[in-house]
Amino acid sequence: MLMDDMGWGDLGVFGEPNRETVNLDQLAKEGMIFPSFYSANPLCSPSRAALLSGRLPIRNGFYTSNDHARNAYTPQEIMGGIPDYEILLPEILKEAGYRNKIIGKWHLGQQRQYHPLKHGFHEWFGSPNCHFGPYDNKVTPNIPVYKDAEMAGRFFQDFLIDTQSGESNLTQLYIQEALTFLEAQASSGAPFFLYWAVDATHEPLYASKPFLGRSRRGMYGDAVMELDYGVGKIINKLLELGVAENTLVFFSSDNGAATYAKTQGGSNGPFLCGKETTFEGGMREPTIAWWPSVIKPGQVSHQIGSLMDLYTTLLKLAGRQPPADRVVDGIDLTEVLLKNTEVERPLFYYRGNELMAVRLGDYKAHLWTWTNSLQEFNKGIDFCPGENIENVTTHAQVNNTMQPLLFHIGRDPGEKYVIRPNTMEYKQNIGLLMAAVQEHRKHLVPGIPQLNMCDRAVMNWSPPGCEKLGQCYQAPSTNPQKCSWPH
Amino acid sequence: MLMDDMGWGDLGVFGEPNRETVNLDQLAKEGMIFPSFYSANPLCSPSRAALLSGRLPIRNGFYTSNDHARNAYTPQEIMGGIPDYEILLPEILKEAGYRNKIIGKWHLGQQRQYHPLKHGFHEWFGSPNCHFGPYDNKVTPNIPVYKDAEMAGRFFQDFLIDTQSGESNLTQLYIQEALTFLEAQASSGAPFFLYWAVDATHEPLYASKPFLGRSRRGMYGDAVMELDYGVGKIINKLLELGVAENTLVFFSSDNGAATYAKTQGGSNGPFLCGKETTFEGGMREPTIAWWPSVIKPGQVSHQIGSLMDLYTTLLKLAGRQPPADRVVDGIDLTEVLLKNTEVERPLFYYRGNELMAVRLGDYKAHLWTWTNSLQEFNKGIDFCPGENIENVTTHAQVNNTMQPLLFHIGRDPGEKYVIRPNTMEYKQNIGLLMAAVQEHRKHLVPGIPQLNMCDRAVMNWSPPGCEKLGQCYQAPSTNPQKCSWPH
Ligand SMILES: [Ca+2]
Ligand SMILES: [Ca+2]
Repeated sequence: MLMDDMGWGDLGVFGEPNRETVNLDQLAKEGMIFPSFYSANPLCSPSRAALLSGRLPIRNGFYTSNDHARNAYTPQEIMGGIPDYEILLPEILKEAGYRNKIIGKWHLGQQRQYHPLKHGFHEWFGSPNCHFGPYDNKVTPNIPVYKDAEMAGRFFQDFLIDTQSGESNLTQLYIQEALTFLEAQASSGAPFFLYWAVDATHEPLYASKPFLGRSRRGMYGDAVMELDYGVGKIINKLLELGVAENTLVFFSSDNGAATYAKTQGGSNGPFLCGKETTFEGGMREPTIAWWPSVIKPGQVSHQIGSLMDLYTTLLKLAGRQPPADRVVDGIDLTEVLLKNTEVERPLFYYRGNELMAVRLGDYKAHLWTWTNSLQEFNKGIDFCPGENIENVTTHAQVNNTMQPLLFHIGRDPGEKYVIRPNTMEYKQNIGLLMAAVQEHRKHLVPGIPQLNMCDRAVMNWSPPGCEKLGQCYQAPSTNPQKCSWPH
Repeated sequence: MLMDDMGWGDLGVFGEPNRETVNLDQLAKEGMIFPSFYSANPLCSPSRAALLSGRLPIRNGFYTSNDHARNAYTPQEIMGGIPDYEILLPEILKEAGYRNKIIGKWHLGQQRQYHPLKHGFHEWFGSPNCHFGPYDNKVTPNIPVYKDAEMAGRFFQDFLIDTQSGESNLTQLYIQEALTFLEAQASSGAPFFLYWAVDATHEPLYASKPFLGRSRRGMYGDAVMELDYGVGKIINKLLELGVAENTLVFFSSDNGAATYAKTQGGSNGPFLCGKETTFEGGMREPTIAWWPSVIKPGQVSHQIGSLMDLYTTLLKLAGRQPPADRVVDGIDLTEVLLKNTEVERPLFYYRGNELMAVRLGDYKAHLWTWTNSLQEFNKGIDFCPGENIENVTTHAQVNNTMQPLLFHIGRDPGEKYVIRPNTMEYKQNIGLLMAAVQEHRKHLVPGIPQLNMCDRAVMNWSPPGCEKLGQCYQAPSTNPQKCSWPH
């Protein structure tokens, strides 16, 4: 279960003061929480590509080299996508006999060769892109929603989102799709992998009518409450079908809360800044593992983990190995899940083509600092609303590589109090962190950047199946250009 | 159980990422948490005076009129203290047959007429002031530690705190005192009121040797872990003695975390600023109620509550009424505890002699904003480290009374996004808040300010019992002056 732009601080169990996630809080009580679990990137597409490939975006190509340290994703006009070279988690699970379904947002490529059914999934209900719009189908086509290999309609036409009221029954559809899939799999008896990639907490926020206005947190909270309700339905279905004890449920989010969206975005709890940044608020995720009779209830794992670790861990649990012909960044957390052990795991925080920071144990060093440009900031785009830490939340890209900014995020989770370079603590620790960086770089071969080129001709004018629905529209002539990534 | 300067975000159950408060988190699972519970003041002395008198500091005199909206407390040179007119909680409980003990910091007055045994407590082990020092007993005497009506020694002489290492066995003494008291009360069968007012999380931080270095959070975390351990010991003792089902345990803190102490202070989670301020970080407290077989386990109360409510609630549970001849600010929360009901409760945020803000439902209006002066701030004293919100975290005392700053703290717990006065939401809500203010002011008769005058002659030169210990020191001649309160 991968949430979209949900923040670490959005669950009651992680300190959200309104305590509205009753099902997730219950899941946490019955399972294991991971307060130090991270996405591989502070942005949707690269984070999701990393999760499914087990490899950092710098390796799998989900970054841009158009400009230094810029965030890039897969809007409609993107030309690139997940390369065939990458061996996705569902591809290997498929070989192992699993039936794989993705419900919700794909975000690993706009064009059809990048679609889920070309990369290991058997079934798909959802969209290749975010639910932005509405569009006019002339300048810009509305985003299609797929049922497996063909489109089933488009957002704002067949799958409605009222951008005024926020009303949409999409989450309900995503819940129902999950329940139906689980029923079919339980009766077939075959193993399954369900990737529930719902997106109601990504702007524009939405919730179905019964949930609108329910939360004390406004529409963002409404969306969270409906997702939480969905989690409850899915868990109950697993129990009802008698497959719960044979099913690992893993809940997390693809990046930190979109703090720039202000009250339309979520909460990163005590952590600094949010989505788009490599501060803790950008990449630390609310994470729960649940597996009755296998994972003991009420546990806290202090393991530093990454969504990429799901790749290696799930393969291990399925009796498979990750490919041996390439570097895989995900590590096997099976022992952590089963025995609550802890292994050393350096964590690398990338933004686009730059390694911005590294965490080792409780220390984190920023090699580069950046929020966004002063021009963007002055237009009101603020990744760190109300937060301003000298030399840290910088509006210039500051290269600290020669003397990285060191923080102890155990006692300073908000990255407010830099450890001065003249202290013993700095001297004793910075070398270890930089050694981890050096080791990492030694094996680093950047993949071909997939997020450099954009072309309005590749937009969703005529997705597969459009002819059956009378929804094929005229594409403009091709005109590939470098994509523009503002931050 | 009243903690000192512990923040809302310092418990695992309230989202502290290191999750080190296992006993308190267990207490929360077995009881009821209150995410919207407040102290009556962002500072020790007034907060504690309000708790025990059930009345706001502006009424019971625990404020200063030396200067506008200044925080004041009870240092050694303070002349004032809790007035005899105030009827403290233990005074009424005593009449109802309870045996009352305070363990730890009193802070309701320096001079002997203000001591706990003069105001309803039967027993005392602890100090009238904070554990500051060491002093030289010439310019300034060391703070005494009392055993009931007489001193048992002094900090840094008889009760050691190593300010270099932070080592002190004080918390262990406070735990042992509690256990011994509980044993005595259980065997006597008489009802009891134990006010466990420990102070290890107030600067200078301390912990006993086995706890030093244990926490991932540094010495602050060590102190928290030892207090958490103490909570566990007390709970186990209640269970072991068979009195748990007849005992309400209430855990909270006297004010928000001392953010100005940086990594030596605690965490206010997602809330703005900290101790000394009337932003949420200054007064929202980590609060748990536990009472096996009476309070159902695993509950969340959204009741807006105040430490002053303990006054009225505990009296109700003891079959008594609060005095009828005065305004009592504490309300009865018995129904909330027993049935998880919710009642409307306007909350008034005072700083010194000024009403700074009001909360009603999820709305909060700031009539005044202030952090501290620019002069203080420029000297490095920062109540809101890393936080800077225009027109909100002001360094001037800004009077917004004519058009209060309105926030919805359900969707904006960090008080970052002001609701603009030209919106319907502002117009529909500000009137309700201001009506609550008007109603409050109608019945407000400020008490005689107790925290105006200081005199070095009233310091702890010769506390009761000093002669037995050979610890009576020469006081300077009396020289009463206005106390200086810098913020
Ligand atoms: Ca996202
Ligand atoms: Ca205090």
